[in-house]
Amino acid sequence: MRSITCFNIWYFLCLGLGLACVACVCFWNSQWRGGFAWDGSSRQFNWHPVLMVTGMLVLYGNGAVLYRVPLTWGENKLPWKLLHAALMLLALILSVIGLCAVFGNHNASNIPNLYSLHSWIGIITTVLFAAQWAAGMAVFLLPWSPDSLRKLLKPQHVWMGGSLMTLGIGACISGINEKLFFVLKGNTSGSQPYSQLPTEALLGNSLGVLMIAFGLVVLKILSTREWQKPESQNVLIAECDGDDLIL
Amino acid sequence: MRSITCFNIWYFLCLGLGLACVACVCFWNSQWRGGFAWDGSSRQFNWHPVLMVTGMLVLYGNGAVLYRVPLTWGENKLPWKLLHAALMLLALILSVIGLCAVFGNHNASNIPNLYSLHSWIGIITTVLFAAQWAAGMAVFLLPWSPDSLRKLLKPQHVWMGGSLMTLGIGACISGINEKLFFVLKGNTSGSQPYSQLPTEALLGNSLGVLMIAFGLVVLKILSTREWQKPESQNVLIAECDGDDLIL
Repeated sequence: MRSITCFNIWYFLCLGLGLACVACVCFWNSQWRGGFAWDGSSRQFNWHPVLMVTGMLVLYGNGAVLYRVPLTWGENKLPWKLLHAALMLLALILSVIGLCAVFGNHNASNIPNLYSLHSWIGIITTVLFAAQWAAGMAVFLLPWSPDSLRKLLKPQHVWMGGSLMTLGIGACISGINEKLFFVLKGNTSGSQPYSQLPTEALLGNSLGVLMIAFGLVVLKILSTREWQKPESQNVLIAECDGDDLIL
Repeated sequence: MRSITCFNIWYFLCLGLGLACVACVCFWNSQWRGGFAWDGSSRQFNWHPVLMVTGMLVLYGNGAVLYRVPLTWGENKLPWKLLHAALMLLALILSVIGLCAVFGNHNASNIPNLYSLHSWIGIITTVLFAAQWAAGMAVFLLPWSPDSLRKLLKPQHVWMGGSLMTLGIGACISGINEKLFFVLKGNTSGSQPYSQLPTEALLGNSLGVLMIAFGLVVLKILSTREWQKPESQNVLIAECDGDDLIL
């Protein structure tokens, strides 16, 4: 009972921090960066941070911890597998639209694509995310996938799941850092430079700290064995029943 | 036997990628950024990426996976605990010297400290790292620490261990990205801007990709249950013997 209460606290922290991240990135881009459009302008770019933080980080993290919610531990696993797959697909779609937003803005402004380390990490993360989703769908959701393949892929899926959270954090942190240096130059619009920590800088940095806190909470939920589905706690990879795999 | 061969491949990959990261960051700063000094100049700054990548990422990652090496699974755990603590202390010391390098350079050049998101994440990571080391030392190394406290702290230590890897990657990726934008402006020294991907940009981006690969390998080794110390594989947190804790 104590363990479930403890889990609930962490889970609501996860939901709360996720919502705070989404609210913060929306507020930043709507109030400080001119809002949203889909016309190739910088207002199209503004969809990029919003969709990447919402998709690649917050929805992804919530999809990753879904199987730790005790409600998902019943006999009928299929609805939860479908919800896990649907959350991850939505996260992937938002991430891809987020990439389209920045490509469209760059192309309209003759800015080269994919040169910064941030963009390289972002693309690598999205490609690995798509591969992870496709492999997860084919192996764990489709009923004709053999148990031996499920057993083989489960540890890779779990490893890549946590790794994508790490990559997503690296991509988002470097992106926000880059954006703040780009827009807070202090020599064009009369605004203070980043180095003087104007309000927008504090807002962007706080978003980064919120994202880090969210990531740590997700990793805490994923790494705590007590919060795994009870029958899988004692099951070693080599012994587990492929039909009972819950990720 | 197959599992040990498989572990060895991943472990050598971990060592190889770690060495490649250190070689790459040293080569970049010695050959492209003017080398090293401790005089407040940009050559003092060059110690910063070298020491953070070497300490916070490579030494830290190698310290984290130490207990997965079967050689450490014997009866006498103390030498390995001491080696784990020593590797982490060295990683922490290098990280702190790396921070001193950048503070010294900034102060000598009247550049404000601790304003960018990169610096915030870096400081948070170093403070958490120091707290993790001190708590680990007090609870797992000192013999008078009670078992109940060890049982309580172990899951937190494991969680924070993986999280610090994630934070370190976020800090290092954002730092390299920021540095490349700073130095590859293309309007001062006649060099190409970052957006045209000159050789230095490719080198810095490749360092970032190497770091990501290293991080993924560390997370793979940490997340694979088959590679944990055999007697701890079936032990749930709630049941584990505090005296037998191996992290």
